Amino acid sequence: MTLDSPQRFITRIYYAETDAGGVVYHSKYLDLAERGRMEFLRRIGQSVGAVQAAYGLIFAVRHCDIEYVAPARLEDEIVIATHLTELGGASVQFRQVINKTLDQRLTVLAKLQISLVAINAAGKPVRIPDGLRAALQNFLEPLAE
Amino acid sequence: MTLDSPQRFITRIYYAETDAGGVVYHSKYLDLAERGRMEFLRRIGQSVGAVQAAYGLIFAVRHCDIEYVAPARLEDEIVIATHLTELGGASVQFRQVINKTLDQRLTVLAKLQISLVAINAAGKPVRIPDGLRAALQNFLEPLAE
Amino acid sequence: MTLDSPQRFITRIYYAETDAGGVVYHSKYLDLAERGRMEFLRRIGQSVGAVQAAYGLIFAVRHCDIEYVAPARLEDEIVIATHLTELGGASVQFRQVINKTLDQRLTVLAKLQISLVAINAAGKPVRIPDGLRAALQNFLEPLAE
Amino acid sequence: MTLDSPQRFITRIYYAETDAGGVVYHSKYLDLAERGRMEFLRRIGQSVGAVQAAYGLIFAVRHCDIEYVAPARLEDEIVIATHLTELGGASVQFRQVINKTLDQRLTVLAKLQISLVAINAAGKPVRIPDGLRAALQNFLEPLAE
Repeated sequence: MTLDSPQRFITRIYYAETDAGGVVYHSKYLDLAERGRMEFLRRIGQSVGAVQAAYGLIFAVRHCDIEYVAPARLEDEIVIATHLTELGGASVQFRQVINKTLDQRLTVLAKLQISLVAINAAGKPVRIPDGLRAALQNFLEPLAE
Repeated sequence: MTLDSPQRFITRIYYAETDAGGVVYHSKYLDLAERGRMEFLRRIGQSVGAVQAAYGLIFAVRHCDIEYVAPARLEDEIVIATHLTELGGASVQFRQVINKTLDQRLTVLAKLQISLVAINAAGKPVRIPDGLRAALQNFLEPLAE
Repeated sequence: MTLDSPQRFITRIYYAETDAGGVVYHSKYLDLAERGRMEFLRRIGQSVGAVQAAYGLIFAVRHCDIEYVAPARLEDEIVIATHLTELGGASVQFRQVINKTLDQRLTVLAKLQISLVAINAAGKPVRIPDGLRAALQNFLEPLAE
Repeated sequence: MTLDSPQRFITRIYYAETDAGGVVYHSKYLDLAERGRMEFLRRIGQSVGAVQAAYGLIFAVRHCDIEYVAPARLEDEIVIATHLTELGGASVQFRQVINKTLDQRLTVLAKLQISLVAINAAGKPVRIPDGLRAALQNFLEPLAE
């Protein structure tokens, strides 16, 4: 993963992401992760809008497992790593790591496994079309056994 | 406004509404106000879903003026007062007050003036249909000059 | 779980919880689940504020596993079931089910397993104090093997 | 306002900002505006964290007037213009414009006037300290009469 790879997205923490505990609210990590996935798709030429226009499908989250390692705080610089680990008939799976930049190094804040399914306008699962599949295949990084 | 009038909605503050300042995040008052308006409409038989199904229209916010008087905090009981103050051709205006319950009395936290316009699926302003207009008219409370 | 048990909390879906897919945004289920946990604690006399004042601790989320079964939509009535399934030295685990009311029956929308740890003001894990432990113990429902 | 001036911040719309109407939810424009203000402060060397550490104060929103001109949509590129228009004893006022980039030109989506007051840890208004005042003064752009 190079600095400008599609799998890497940098953002920052603003007040809207924090809660009265003084840290980032736990559900906001899922929002950060989605920014990472949307940017990954956009940069490989398969933005959410382009995919919907071309194929009439969107990806819906079916399962998410998230481990919280350390809290993010206001104004932290956040680096989101997004890796496509599975490409099924109608589904995709990502592994994502949310880091903060601290002293020019990355510190892990949270780790996610997230599964999505391609659905049509009626909400029914549909096979991922060939064009989209080929684009995703180029970035597939299966988890080591 | 009686205890069970459509203009009165009670809710509570959870972590998701707070920020690192320890109080409710300022944009969340707009979310609370919208809960109040949606409950008002639902209780007078004109829920968002019913109106969209019957007339193909939704209300979009065009202007909002909000004054923050005192902060809400985690677990506060919130009482939202919602008053329809204007009913135009395609627009409505509400005055809303967000209060907290303190020692069995209400304390004002924020005051809003909010204008909405009826729009169709294409986003174009449309005249409020007679059935909806009649239902709203019953609850119109013009501001004193 | 009876209708007014502490494990049962009823709420509704407003615009703020939805996204451009027309359904409830996936991270908002975590917000709904937290409302369920906060209401459970409040109703057993151990509200977040009371616990923080008495013991100087809050619960931070450490792990969450969520399965999305069916989408929630605008104005749906939501019933959140919250069950305390483990009570460790410094940690608690909940199983939660988010349902919608449909034709007077419950339909499952999402299922969560969520682990939290008691932390002090410095963010360090602390043992759950006896008073709080005793209150929680009364509602412990271990998962069947 | 040049391309890299502190008054200009660029971001993008993700699912978390949208609602079931298919566009950005109205309270999220306040979140976007706050990102603009936080970036403005950070870039002039007065980040929220630095100011709180140096002076023990934060800025709380007291009043907001927002006019919604046109809707933002998923994946839109958003350009936020932030102008400090008043610098009082304990208060500041900003004028902000939220634009989208369309065909390499800016289209106005929303306009805000927002007033904030400097408060200490007890929530009491405090005079803006000289160091902070001098930094802000450099960027003061009073509205024309």
